[in-house]
Amino acid sequence: MSLVVVGSIAYDRIETPSRPEGVKVLGGSATYCSVAASFFTVPQMVGVIGDDFANKDMEFLKDCNIDTGGIVREKGETFFWHGRYHDDMEGRDSLDTRLNVFQNFNPDLHDTMRSPDILFLGNIAPILQLKVLDQMKNRPFVAADTIDLWINTALDELIKVISRVDLFFLNEDEAFRITKTDSLTNAAGALLDMGPKAVIIKRGDAGAVLFDRNSWSFVPAWPLEKVVDPTGAGDTFAGGLMGFLDQKGDVSSNAMRAGLVTGSALASFCVGGFGPRHLASTKSATLKSRINGFINATRIDKKLLSWVMDD
Amino acid sequence: MSLVVVGSIAYDRIETPSRPEGVKVLGGSATYCSVAASFFTVPQMVGVIGDDFANKDMEFLKDCNIDTGGIVREKGETFFWHGRYHDDMEGRDSLDTRLNVFQNFNPDLHDTMRSPDILFLGNIAPILQLKVLDQMKNRPFVAADTIDLWINTALDELIKVISRVDLFFLNEDEAFRITKTDSLTNAAGALLDMGPKAVIIKRGDAGAVLFDRNSWSFVPAWPLEKVVDPTGAGDTFAGGLMGFLDQKGDVSSNAMRAGLVTGSALASFCVGGFGPRHLASTKSATLKSRINGFINATRIDKKLLSWVMDD
Repeated sequence: MSLVVVGSIAYDRIETPSRPEGVKVLGGSATYCSVAASFFTVPQMVGVIGDDFANKDMEFLKDCNIDTGGIVREKGETFFWHGRYHDDMEGRDSLDTRLNVFQNFNPDLHDTMRSPDILFLGNIAPILQLKVLDQMKNRPFVAADTIDLWINTALDELIKVISRVDLFFLNEDEAFRITKTDSLTNAAGALLDMGPKAVIIKRGDAGAVLFDRNSWSFVPAWPLEKVVDPTGAGDTFAGGLMGFLDQKGDVSSNAMRAGLVTGSALASFCVGGFGPRHLASTKSATLKSRINGFINATRIDKKLLSWVMDD
Repeated sequence: MSLVVVGSIAYDRIETPSRPEGVKVLGGSATYCSVAASFFTVPQMVGVIGDDFANKDMEFLKDCNIDTGGIVREKGETFFWHGRYHDDMEGRDSLDTRLNVFQNFNPDLHDTMRSPDILFLGNIAPILQLKVLDQMKNRPFVAADTIDLWINTALDELIKVISRVDLFFLNEDEAFRITKTDSLTNAAGALLDMGPKAVIIKRGDAGAVLFDRNSWSFVPAWPLEKVVDPTGAGDTFAGGLMGFLDQKGDVSSNAMRAGLVTGSALASFCVGGFGPRHLASTKSATLKSRINGFINATRIDKKLLSWVMDD
């Protein structure tokens, strides 16, 4: 199978209560998503970088076994984001956002990337997500993610994106705002009515819920002693799920449910440190052990509940 | 097996955004817990009521197949609570709390109730929970619940309670406050260090997590279109779990995990209407269907994740 990931590539300066001076790391939705997916497959990463993008960062992506052939270098600086997390490590303020080369990003995919099995549209402007969709020569399984900025500034295009994808990821608050509802069930119903086969509503440390027409499925967030940096957790969750689907060659409801676990497992490592290098340093055995931990934590002894089934 | 449930019996006046005029219903921790447990077993309910306690309410409890032999009637009025829920249906203000006959409640259990297999200490003053524990002639499996009032006013006694039970229930905020930590894992570790074999941290619409020494286990809250009244949801959750353990005659870690599901299923019906009569009206087939829904929602196809197990 093949997986194309389109999204932002950035440098982030991240301030947290325990690192008030800030930490500068590689960032962006395509970056976190591709690094996560690379645990399972060889993602083809599409995005734009500036003159300042360090060779060591490109080498890092290649070392992750990411196909970087779709990364374009333009004159100017790489997209830069400077944020500060609140004490609760959930709320955050954007102190500075410089689009730089990202401002004129106009994704023009290589011919070899226009017929993937799976396409993931990470968080970029919905108009750009639509442009990428228009370049597809086949009908891949398409998933997309967004952020609240686009609900405020480009809702019409965002709704077009939602109508054209198979799987849509968003946060709970975003789901409530797009659908003007205040319960997960109603939000999911309204989103499914827009077109996708499935919707995944991300709930931070409360896990994530997948809804399709017939059922819902759930994954918790791994309970951690400490969250070091939540940046990229949502992209990592999506990347862990998409990479898994690509590895399995299976985009069924059943595979998506299992992918909730690989996504949540990788997200739990993402937030344990700063930047995608921390995520990439996760050992295979550690990831396997955590996935087994998820299986164990959600395991129910159906036999004990058998009175339910029996009469 | 036998289950004794000790707790409050009350009349509640509940105001919600959709019922600002308020609804008066039967309430109390022992009431919700016993009604929930009665779906699985015949709980022996212990508590105090006043002269004003209506015959129809006593008949209701008996009709639920609850053993009301441990309910004592005293001169005066029944414990009364008047609360108003905020628009988010989570925050609430206590507008009036009249302990009435509950003020002098001094549980003195019938001899026949002093050697149960399972004892549940619902939310009452920790000093009273300790008194009940002292009356036990055997060493039952003991579970207890609390509310934040006792963290503020009776922390020393509460810690004694925690040290003497097998399973302790509390809300996430309460767990953080008692243990002075800010993560589920650390809070659970600190609580387990106080003595219990297992701790269940309730997280409202994010579900509940069971921690024991070796593992954790998780149940989501059922995604509902609308929460009508959250009063009693925590007591119902505990009652659904305890009643299930009593029915199975099994207090193993495995049984507690399965009981998370019966508890969460009943709690999802509790919040769908006002008062314990709404909960009690849940049809057996409806409950069974919801429990099967939980099994389905947390089902993971391990075969798909087999690369994890295989190498």
